[in-house]
Amino acid sequence: MSNLAAIYKRRVEFAETDMAGQVHFSNFFRYMEEAEHAIWRKSGMRIAAEGREHQWPRISAHCDFKNRLKVDDEFEVRTEIAKVSPRTIQWGHTLMRGDTLIASGTVTAVCVKQQPDGSIKAVEIPKEILERLRSALA
Amino acid sequence: MSNLAAIYKRRVEFAETDMAGQVHFSNFFRYMEEAEHAIWRKSGMRIAAEGREHQWPRISAHCDFKNRLKVDDEFEVRTEIAKVSPRTIQWGHTLMRGDTLIASGTVTAVCVKQQPDGSIKAVEIPKEILERLRSALA
Amino acid sequence: MSNLAAIYKRRVEFAETDMAGQVHFSNFFRYMEEAEHAIWRKSGMRIAAEGREHQWPRISAHCDFKNRLKVDDEFEVRTEIAKVSPRTIQWGHTLMRGDTLIASGTVTAVCVKQQPDGSIKAVEIPKEILERLRSALA
Amino acid sequence: MSNLAAIYKRRVEFAETDMAGQVHFSNFFRYMEEAEHAIWRKSGMRIAAEGREHQWPRISAHCDFKNRLKVDDEFEVRTEIAKVSPRTIQWGHTLMRGDTLIASGTVTAVCVKQQPDGSIKAVEIPKEILERLRSALA
Repeated sequence: MSNLAAIYKRRVEFAETDMAGQVHFSNFFRYMEEAEHAIWRKSGMRIAAEGREHQWPRISAHCDFKNRLKVDDEFEVRTEIAKVSPRTIQWGHTLMRGDTLIASGTVTAVCVKQQPDGSIKAVEIPKEILERLRSALA
Repeated sequence: MSNLAAIYKRRVEFAETDMAGQVHFSNFFRYMEEAEHAIWRKSGMRIAAEGREHQWPRISAHCDFKNRLKVDDEFEVRTEIAKVSPRTIQWGHTLMRGDTLIASGTVTAVCVKQQPDGSIKAVEIPKEILERLRSALA
Repeated sequence: MSNLAAIYKRRVEFAETDMAGQVHFSNFFRYMEEAEHAIWRKSGMRIAAEGREHQWPRISAHCDFKNRLKVDDEFEVRTEIAKVSPRTIQWGHTLMRGDTLIASGTVTAVCVKQQPDGSIKAVEIPKEILERLRSALA
Repeated sequence: MSNLAAIYKRRVEFAETDMAGQVHFSNFFRYMEEAEHAIWRKSGMRIAAEGREHQWPRISAHCDFKNRLKVDDEFEVRTEIAKVSPRTIQWGHTLMRGDTLIASGTVTAVCVKQQPDGSIKAVEIPKEILERLRSALA
């Protein structure tokens, strides 16, 4: 029901383009990840801090590409929480350059905890983490 | 009905890993693209040659991540043509490390032709191109 | 004699790290390029615009790595024109995280112009370009 | 005095190109690193294995770019040990496409050992490691 979202602003760098003169499609997934990590920081948490209790490996990613991004283009990623299950968060991302839809996609991450033997195990997302993430989507 | 496929072999390079000690998920899309391009070469065509008549921008990409890839891991990408429409090809990719499923995904490309005014326009895939690609999936 | 320089601010993104838990050394060259391109923009020019008269391929790059950069680190690149020859500019870059020296390096670019036959040829740097770049190093 | 060297063969992938239609210069450093790591594997050692005693952070990198590499180009990296000091190895790399010199560069790595408190400290390179690396340069 919610349309809470965060906006992440970015400019296309030269090294992100390919010989077709546009951003290589794999970099769109990096842009989406950057936008998500900005939300973690805004929430006062760090998704990738050393010694952190939980990790969030990605289990699925999808993107539909609608228009090209070119060098120096300024664009924004609008990110929301698209779906939550007890152990996963699906982030929904929309990339816009001005009023032009560039791409939309989702990245699903699972909450895991390192076990004493070094392996990782999926665990329930702590309520507090979810609340803090939501509060960062003003 | 077909299970024609091509196999592309690869090793994980150090620069493809991230601080979580595994291949960054965005690189899986590069692996899938490399596997597709190997099929173009095997078919005697080059997808990205200068002066080529058609280009193949990606319109959609998806990947489910099942297991981690680590540095020096040898793996293979098994690629088939998952779906064809008059103007698009959906490539299906399965990444395996030995008997372990690492990831499976699809990348959909649309056949476009540059117009006299420099813009691009989706066009029907020439029959011959499709036949040659299929013949490269032994 | 000049200590004119521009400051480019950046944060380390997750995908820029490697399994050693720090920014992969090849990405330092991308940071230096980003800083240089920011100067081009600030000068009112675009180094990589379509239809531009001159191009600036790199002929040499060097970097000394003094300290690690880690995910989420905020740092800045201080960029100056280290040396100019009739056809080349050597950019000098210093990366700092607060008061900590992270790396210092140079990237040398040559001014080339596309010839009627499609080949490129090194040419003298137009005076006006150099003046505009210098004026962007406030 | 030695001209012992190892040859690493590679093809340019699409995602390694930039909008100028050639390999982005930062990727040359990745090619050189790949060539070095191939030597470690050939020597029966793994530079980046988990639980390894020594690590080899890069302290300096340099490259002179002589000719462009384009998509699908096949090239090789010829790697030798250019210089050794008690704690560092300088790798020398030459990239060739057939008889055409593409680039030459060096990457210097220092041998470090993790200390009980988690910090790292430069240490003398074990003689045996050096001998094994040299024996891999047939």
